[in-house]
Amino acid sequence: MTYKVGILGLGTVGTGVAKILQDPIGRHPLLPEIKIARVGVRSLNKQRDVAIAPDLITDNLESIVNDPAIDIVVELIGGIEPAKSLILKAIANGKHIVTANKAVIARHGSEIFTAAKQKGIYVMLEAAACGGIPVIQALKQSLGGNRISELTGIVNGTTNYILSRMYFEGADFAATLAEAQQLGYAEADPTADVDGFDAADKMAILASLAFGDRVKVEDIYREGIRSITSADIGYAKELGFTIKLLGIAKRPKTDGDSNLEIRVHPTLVPIQHPLANINGVTNAIRIEGDPIGEVVFSGPGAGSGATASAVVADIINVAAALKSMPNQINSLMGCSHEHYAKVAPIANTVAQFYVRLLTHDKAGVIGDLGTAFGKHSVSLNAILQKTTVHDGLAEIVVVTQKVSEFNLQAAIAAIHDLPTMHSIPTILRVL
Amino acid sequence: MTYKVGILGLGTVGTGVAKILQDPIGRHPLLPEIKIARVGVRSLNKQRDVAIAPDLITDNLESIVNDPAIDIVVELIGGIEPAKSLILKAIANGKHIVTANKAVIARHGSEIFTAAKQKGIYVMLEAAACGGIPVIQALKQSLGGNRISELTGIVNGTTNYILSRMYFEGADFAATLAEAQQLGYAEADPTADVDGFDAADKMAILASLAFGDRVKVEDIYREGIRSITSADIGYAKELGFTIKLLGIAKRPKTDGDSNLEIRVHPTLVPIQHPLANINGVTNAIRIEGDPIGEVVFSGPGAGSGATASAVVADIINVAAALKSMPNQINSLMGCSHEHYAKVAPIANTVAQFYVRLLTHDKAGVIGDLGTAFGKHSVSLNAILQKTTVHDGLAEIVVVTQKVSEFNLQAAIAAIHDLPTMHSIPTILRVL
Repeated sequence: MTYKVGILGLGTVGTGVAKILQDPIGRHPLLPEIKIARVGVRSLNKQRDVAIAPDLITDNLESIVNDPAIDIVVELIGGIEPAKSLILKAIANGKHIVTANKAVIARHGSEIFTAAKQKGIYVMLEAAACGGIPVIQALKQSLGGNRISELTGIVNGTTNYILSRMYFEGADFAATLAEAQQLGYAEADPTADVDGFDAADKMAILASLAFGDRVKVEDIYREGIRSITSADIGYAKELGFTIKLLGIAKRPKTDGDSNLEIRVHPTLVPIQHPLANINGVTNAIRIEGDPIGEVVFSGPGAGSGATASAVVADIINVAAALKSMPNQINSLMGCSHEHYAKVAPIANTVAQFYVRLLTHDKAGVIGDLGTAFGKHSVSLNAILQKTTVHDGLAEIVVVTQKVSEFNLQAAIAAIHDLPTMHSIPTILRVL
Repeated sequence: MTYKVGILGLGTVGTGVAKILQDPIGRHPLLPEIKIARVGVRSLNKQRDVAIAPDLITDNLESIVNDPAIDIVVELIGGIEPAKSLILKAIANGKHIVTANKAVIARHGSEIFTAAKQKGIYVMLEAAACGGIPVIQALKQSLGGNRISELTGIVNGTTNYILSRMYFEGADFAATLAEAQQLGYAEADPTADVDGFDAADKMAILASLAFGDRVKVEDIYREGIRSITSADIGYAKELGFTIKLLGIAKRPKTDGDSNLEIRVHPTLVPIQHPLANINGVTNAIRIEGDPIGEVVFSGPGAGSGATASAVVADIINVAAALKSMPNQINSLMGCSHEHYAKVAPIANTVAQFYVRLLTHDKAGVIGDLGTAFGKHSVSLNAILQKTTVHDGLAEIVVVTQKVSEFNLQAAIAAIHDLPTMHSIPTILRVL
């Protein structure tokens, strides 16, 4: 049998997918049965890095999702619109979907999966989170026997690249970002990456699969890495940590009923932790469950080849399912959950904190600080004091024990008002 | 629908599987449809860590594989017989198989898969290699778009535990093995682990999935870790390496036609390599492919919970497939290859080598050595010389550049005959 694929978008990922489908030798034995039927592009005249017969290429994307000959629509244009409308139209026309579009799945997954379920359609999204790392399939299938209690990940390559360089070279954020932009690792407008939006989209997808409930992106607490300075990286190192932008999702009680905690923020990670040594643009996901314990997946989270690998895996999965059962959906391949997770407010969560403070270099500062923290039940694990950084100011770094976010914020508010306090430049969580 | 499972063996893994199936809340939504129908044990009177209704338990294992009510037979008794006969009988009776038995799959997979294919039966083996790490499914499905060029892994937890302790504590092999035996990390007869037989079984399974050809265990070159001394670990450290028992499978040319290289041996691993920091009983697999690049999976390679997680994943996969298509096999879940890989003889492979030599402490020793290596086209990367270790002997460690095994062995034979040479205690490969 032959399965006909319509590809929407021929950028780097689309080109990577087309190259694999055109050159199947030595890959999966099902690939020769998968054919590129149509390719939709924005500009017909652009030079391409892959040879596609001109009569297969169109700039009319609607014609692809409406083409009765096509079995699988591969959406690689990204962004919300027209991607969302094209996906919904393809589903309405009975076509299976493979997408690498984290934004549309994270924000409109509910509408898309509901439509797909009604029509008996697969919506496959391995490429939508962490590129080539096969974590979506692991969550859907391989870890199904487990009660997942925690999923923690480095899910954004750009910020991991920046933080890794800051760690190894002591460079500052602004300079490292500028260099990352020059090298093509960060976009001209880096907001989606450095402010954690991209990571939050991916965490919404990963957490919904790990915990079996839909997650709204807007429920995810989110902080980016713009406030991290080389001073923070230096202190973290001194204390035995590195700093990573982590996505953290956990359900502290595994009764399946308690609130989900889910957040994206820069985090001090102990240097022996398996995520601490994931550097550069590499992504990694650590999953903790009962009875498996801990598994870690790492690999390229982005890039043409890695993302194309995930897209093609999804195409193969759909083709194999269609081959054996054209009219029946395999429930393991779908996203069947329909309820939204109850997400715990950040104020209710518990964490260790790293706080960097600038104080007037006077006697009694440490005592004032300790008293203020103590009044709000914040116990301290470590204090570093560097006297007279500049202008008669001293820098103090504290690491707390595990405290509620609510208590920490109350202590911080009180400390702000201390006469000996100059400012509190950085507050970070510790893994 | 309900899917009826017959479990052969109620040891730690069988107990773990039964516990998951009895307590499905918060795990995969398909689990409540999977029921334990029969459990086969060796001794009916043994105290069990899981509550199974007495009328489900039998010591007649044949009666389970012959029971018409059972859909899936879960083989957890291990070893070759009676496991092999029971599996074949279950297949003949149309039952799907889930097994954690690497020995029977590595040695008799050919017969088992041929029988399964003829009957249209699934034989699932996620638990047969690397316990809970979902690498089998990744190779079968998620990485299908790739041409795999290399699979390297720490696939035996016992040896990794021993080598990790030797690395961190400078302890000797014999003492560490004895301690591992006391702690239950090594068996009373440690042969299968420390001599690399267990790792070879797993590599036969992993390589056959990665490279699409069956691999005979007896074609795998194999060296264990008994010869590793604390001196070797120390020199490796000094040179920037750790020592790991690695399984290495690669197809140097990715034309799908060249010989497969596959071997298990202690290996010097550069300390920055992703496998270098996998310590204790943890397993890890690094897979390199085109276009994905590199992915690494790590997690618990053995133990009740981890192995049960993999077994249950396989049961869920079979149940989901049966639910949607009772009479059709999904080709992605099978092991379809029927040909045997051509395996390159070890003499034809190329590697860097670490050689530790004891010489009489005389002038000209280094010159003699260099000349002997040079004559056989073995170039050197590094030489460490420690004078007068004991009895007037000097210890010399060399690391070669990449050379063919054939040339290295020829050079070693010549060096053995040098009058200044005392002995050559260790020869190891470098990753």
